Amino acid sequence: MATQGQVITCKAAVAWEPNKPLVIEDVEVAPPQAGEVRIKILFTALCHTDAYTWGGKDPEGLFPCILGHEAAGVVESVGEGVTEVQPGDHVIPCYQAECRECKFCKSGKTNLCGKVRGATGVGVMMTDRKSRFSVNGKPIYHFMGTSTFSQYTVVHDVSVAKIDPIAPLDKVCLLGCGVPTGLGAVWNTAKVEPGSTVAIFGLGTVGLAVAEGARTAGASRVIGIDIDSKKFDTAKNFGVTEFVNPKDHDKPIQQVLVDLTDGGVDYSFECIGNVQIMRAALECCHKGWGTSVIVGVAASGQEISTRPFQLVTGRVWKGTAFGGFKSRSQVPWLVEKYLKKEIKVDEYITHNMTLGEINEAFHLLHEGGCLRCVLSMDK
Amino acid sequence: MATQGQVITCKAAVAWEPNKPLVIEDVEVAPPQAGEVRIKILFTALCHTDAYTWGGKDPEGLFPCILGHEAAGVVESVGEGVTEVQPGDHVIPCYQAECRECKFCKSGKTNLCGKVRGATGVGVMMTDRKSRFSVNGKPIYHFMGTSTFSQYTVVHDVSVAKIDPIAPLDKVCLLGCGVPTGLGAVWNTAKVEPGSTVAIFGLGTVGLAVAEGARTAGASRVIGIDIDSKKFDTAKNFGVTEFVNPKDHDKPIQQVLVDLTDGGVDYSFECIGNVQIMRAALECCHKGWGTSVIVGVAASGQEISTRPFQLVTGRVWKGTAFGGFKSRSQVPWLVEKYLKKEIKVDEYITHNMTLGEINEAFHLLHEGGCLRCVLSMDK
Repeated sequence: MATQGQVITCKAAVAWEPNKPLVIEDVEVAPPQAGEVRIKILFTALCHTDAYTWGGKDPEGLFPCILGHEAAGVVESVGEGVTEVQPGDHVIPCYQAECRECKFCKSGKTNLCGKVRGATGVGVMMTDRKSRFSVNGKPIYHFMGTSTFSQYTVVHDVSVAKIDPIAPLDKVCLLGCGVPTGLGAVWNTAKVEPGSTVAIFGLGTVGLAVAEGARTAGASRVIGIDIDSKKFDTAKNFGVTEFVNPKDHDKPIQQVLVDLTDGGVDYSFECIGNVQIMRAALECCHKGWGTSVIVGVAASGQEISTRPFQLVTGRVWKGTAFGGFKSRSQVPWLVEKYLKKEIKVDEYITHNMTLGEINEAFHLLHEGGCLRCVLSMDK
Repeated sequence: MATQGQVITCKAAVAWEPNKPLVIEDVEVAPPQAGEVRIKILFTALCHTDAYTWGGKDPEGLFPCILGHEAAGVVESVGEGVTEVQPGDHVIPCYQAECRECKFCKSGKTNLCGKVRGATGVGVMMTDRKSRFSVNGKPIYHFMGTSTFSQYTVVHDVSVAKIDPIAPLDKVCLLGCGVPTGLGAVWNTAKVEPGSTVAIFGLGTVGLAVAEGARTAGASRVIGIDIDSKKFDTAKNFGVTEFVNPKDHDKPIQQVLVDLTDGGVDYSFECIGNVQIMRAALECCHKGWGTSVIVGVAASGQEISTRPFQLVTGRVWKGTAFGGFKSRSQVPWLVEKYLKKEIKVDEYITHNMTLGEINEAFHLLHEGGCLRCVLSMDK
């Protein structure tokens, strides 16, 4: 390709400071170094984690940066030693890497590869601990090792999932974060069995993906809990069988659920990021075996708490990151499941906009009617 | 037997009020009603849970009562409909019942039988919701469904484990609580695999039983943590391979352990009942898979807390009661393992006293050198 080995100047949405509107800038994207891949991003979705960091609530958030981590695109060029993808491959960048060599990857117990975390956690690339992005010579930090709010981005090769080229990128970009997180929380972390009773706190994209995961796992009751009753109609399509609005009850929500289920649910999922709800999610679980999975991301510094008796009497408290999926190995598998119509993706997309409209798109994200907004990157 | 169907008058240690010395009284023990078993207790040990309730720290503690829950004896008589034991059988009373009929027993997921909990939790028998103990006509509450600090006690038939009569009752009485709790926390709740690294907080009887459980499960490193360094010599005999005294370190104990184990332990066990240590036990676990099991009983009203990030990054928080053992089914199996010398029991017994010396025995329990004190009930 003509651009190989060259700096590419393209459009990107730069977060110069927390809480200030993103600015579409001409960004210089350096060529990939050894073990790196430069990707032409075609579609990116917005996720609450972007908004969280942008809002200044993430103590590890670095500015200026290019946010974005739920996207799809095409490999433009690869650095030295990269063998698993080549220019033209359709890919999904993965904020959770998978090197297949570190002790995490080899453990067989977790998807939390540690290879590049030390670099991606501080907004740089591992090789030289520098950024590949700059504006007028000023470096711009990477974000989550993905930075997909740019027409071109550079990522580590261990963070690239190569997918079937027939998959529509404007849809499967969602398989970069929210949908796998919800499905995997059920399939991998909780391992819900047929006949189970499940409670889901928060019916956004992740909560709905949990519902679909529970439905496909054979759960007999899937109880959705949300303070916005309008969400129930949509939620039914994803597998929610019953709806509870905490505002309709005087009792604590955990007690409402315990009463509704003759002792508590078998599995619960917190998909909001609220530490009080995390406690309720644990405490609505059935004595003896109920398992609660924390999926939402809480604000920095906040803590969960409960009486230890809740655990001593058999409840289990867990969490999940990217639904426990091994990214490079399993994102392509999720794409195949989508192509075979075994999992929903299109149904989460409520809005389509362009990179230039990204600030408006973030406003939408905070409104009840928006699940996922997909940005076309060529405008 | 001559006593069958009769009230038996015998000696028992009555706790008339919290925190006041126990009083050896002539107690009248009514005959067993339908589904009940009267047992002649021959040996009982003292456990910290007895001291906890006696001390008035248990909000559910009722007085006057007869404490005690780690014992062995012989069936004196049985009530109507009792088929699984008969007079003369050697038994261990079990505070955790096993009815094999309730939804807990049938779940295959827990040992927390619920059948008689509603009665034992409030110090009475299920049939008539009354006590079988009285002193001069005044009813005395049962405790944990066992009340073994009496020469005769009445328990529900679902709370009686029939054991091999060749087993020495002055030893296997310990299989009524602390030793199974520790072994089972490892074998049933955590399911420690060969090669694991294990941390044990608190090296009392339960902590030492965890160590033996870890050793027999093939753990490669068993790190004992205690503020009394004198305990390490004994702990080695139970399987502890390394010792850490938090007083020797300025850093938080979780950080000391993370540093010592290249990222954290695979499994940790809190055997103290201190909510701050429960947090440390969770946080010393390895990212991605470390599992922490709460074994100790915290004081009423106290809460555990941590950042949810600890769970989202793969740690699991659990608890255990009676080590997850199904009491009637598995206590006899533990007795067999003891008889085959596959598990230690004798080694936990540091003192032998009599019922009449029970107050002195409780004082000993709070001293470092005492693991288990076994009382002979005939004096």
